Amino acid sequence: MKPPVLTLKLKPREERRLRAGHLWVYSNEIEVGPEFRQIEPGSLCRIVDSRDKPLGLGYVNPRTLLAVRLLDADSQRTIDRSWFVRRLAAALALRERLYGEACYRLVHGEGDGLPGLIIDRYGDVLVVQVTTAGMERLKTEWLAALGELLQPRGILLRNDNAARELEGLSQENEVIGEIADPLEIREEGIGFRLSLLGGQKTGFFFDQRDNRSRLARYVRDRSVLDVFSYVGAWGLRALRDGASAATCLDSSQAALDVAQASAGLNGLPLDTIRDDALAGMKALRAEGRQFDVVIVDPPALIKRRKDHDAGLEHYAALNRTALHLLRDGGILVSCSCSHHLEADELQRILLRESRHLGRRLQLLEQGAQGPDHPVHPAIPETRYLKAFFCAVSAG
Amino acid sequence: MKPPVLTLKLKPREERRLRAGHLWVYSNEIEVGPEFRQIEPGSLCRIVDSRDKPLGLGYVNPRTLLAVRLLDADSQRTIDRSWFVRRLAAALALRERLYGEACYRLVHGEGDGLPGLIIDRYGDVLVVQVTTAGMERLKTEWLAALGELLQPRGILLRNDNAARELEGLSQENEVIGEIADPLEIREEGIGFRLSLLGGQKTGFFFDQRDNRSRLARYVRDRSVLDVFSYVGAWGLRALRDGASAATCLDSSQAALDVAQASAGLNGLPLDTIRDDALAGMKALRAEGRQFDVVIVDPPALIKRRKDHDAGLEHYAALNRTALHLLRDGGILVSCSCSHHLEADELQRILLRESRHLGRRLQLLEQGAQGPDHPVHPAIPETRYLKAFFCAVSAG
Repeated sequence: MKPPVLTLKLKPREERRLRAGHLWVYSNEIEVGPEFRQIEPGSLCRIVDSRDKPLGLGYVNPRTLLAVRLLDADSQRTIDRSWFVRRLAAALALRERLYGEACYRLVHGEGDGLPGLIIDRYGDVLVVQVTTAGMERLKTEWLAALGELLQPRGILLRNDNAARELEGLSQENEVIGEIADPLEIREEGIGFRLSLLGGQKTGFFFDQRDNRSRLARYVRDRSVLDVFSYVGAWGLRALRDGASAATCLDSSQAALDVAQASAGLNGLPLDTIRDDALAGMKALRAEGRQFDVVIVDPPALIKRRKDHDAGLEHYAALNRTALHLLRDGGILVSCSCSHHLEADELQRILLRESRHLGRRLQLLEQGAQGPDHPVHPAIPETRYLKAFFCAVSAG
Repeated sequence: MKPPVLTLKLKPREERRLRAGHLWVYSNEIEVGPEFRQIEPGSLCRIVDSRDKPLGLGYVNPRTLLAVRLLDADSQRTIDRSWFVRRLAAALALRERLYGEACYRLVHGEGDGLPGLIIDRYGDVLVVQVTTAGMERLKTEWLAALGELLQPRGILLRNDNAARELEGLSQENEVIGEIADPLEIREEGIGFRLSLLGGQKTGFFFDQRDNRSRLARYVRDRSVLDVFSYVGAWGLRALRDGASAATCLDSSQAALDVAQASAGLNGLPLDTIRDDALAGMKALRAEGRQFDVVIVDPPALIKRRKDHDAGLEHYAALNRTALHLLRDGGILVSCSCSHHLEADELQRILLRESRHLGRRLQLLEQGAQGPDHPVHPAIPETRYLKAFFCAVSAG
């Protein structure tokens, strides 16, 4: 028999965020007695406002500042396999409408009404990240739902993330079923052989897919430098779309090996340089190299709010160095996946650095994460990726 | 002989906006004596800061609040035909890189370093809007430069705009050379027969071109409603990209006639409804009609800051009514070209209206004006178009 669902009451006037559509409650917004700390992390709970009006059904972790995430606006809902089938089927229908290839982010947490659950689909393999105790406790239900909808050949539970540590969850990865290694996936017709398992894991970043498509019209007969290239997804797309040459710069040999293997697989002549991004760009500059298109797509350089100022300087240094490598009339694609860096801040960096070098910068396009990473309009935290496409010319 | 170039001095600390890259000076930022009001509107001027350091070369209108726009950071530059050839050639090179068809915004004012000048290209016809006395005085130079670069068959100077009235310029349109009527243009392979001249002028909105391309993946085998359709560019693209049906709703019969003629020309089965947008949507609702995709792309509903609050309510009413017409799992494309409406404000409207109807709204993509309308990173006023692509489902 299931345990009875708890009821948690908000303090007066703390219901406003939920009423506006947000799904999060912080611990200091809840009326708590001494029994609160005794709640099993991840327990289901009904949330009511200070006048006992129901606000929805969620799960609670009394040990984290972000204590509750809502699952459903209906407090009486049963969160079972069929509930997950409905949510997952909606997520799947959207992706099937968007993409011809079955490689995408299938579930983007709160953006798909499934807080704490992220699922990337690589054909018949799913890579699942569960980041909350609440979603971990519902594992039997969503695993059954995934099985019903997709009959995956293999599921990798990637548990080695910092969020799980905060929630007091295990860090051990888990494999259910079979996962080919290497695993071949396709993005817009280009094949990649990835390794999801083993020592040098090479997954894939689906979130830049649309921005890579957008690059096509800028690269024909042009030379391209792909900084923080990882497995070369930008550089290979550029070559396929007519670039005269493409160079991938990354610090990971394993990632560059995948890039080179994919280049071979697709018959594309890719150059690779293994180096730190800044040092590698400076070396290219010292050699007098210039490019028509430079893509700067770093990992999140501002992981926590306290890293903000140092991170800004890091983004500035990277973009400054990239500008030095750009021919007159060139295109800079400058990205950030740091949630803590606002788009306006990145734009100001680009403006300042280009003016400092006496270049004129025009913002042509501003891309974001692809539509398989939907943004929840009430939850700014679900929006994170920025990709500015800029034309850069002499003063 | 040319008149000597004036020098205008800024008040202390008023140079900051220009130093950051902006191109505008307001009249209250300039040290003016009684002679300021005597300056001929549109005269060239050198701008210096309060310590006489040069800030650039621009033109001045002593009769407008926005008094000076910079043309060049070099105060000693000569603004002649060859200066315009350089700026226009850079603008042209960018568009030729972007588009296979010679139909686009060729010059986007400040975004292309040409304040006060907007040029749309329809093949061998150019439609020019000059919005400042300064650019009007330079007409001989830029007309010669356009002739040298493009040898246009016809140029229409569209002078019937409010900005010119503020600057004390004539409102009479002018035609140079020949302009076919109707004029056929193509966007991504779809032909339109427009009328740039005559009583019911039907130009074209190039700024949504990329967003129309983006629509393709959402419409296959779906029904589409195009509200404020104008000449049907969204609806026709949707049909060409596989929509099962498309209905254009607009208040202008002339625009709908162009839409129907284009539908015939392209062999596409378009429906049209002539009505006010809100009334027309309400009538469709009364008939029980539902659509899989609804596009709401109104003209600027907030033309001046004082219209802001009424405009917000207008956007809300339109989107609320559109949501009523949307099937479960449908796509709402909600646009605004009002510079005075921030993207965040439109997002809040979408969130509030969808919650009010008990619908779940996911933001999939956020489009802007196309790259032939470049944004100047120091001039927020050059960014204006918002286009949210949203998935809408039952609670």
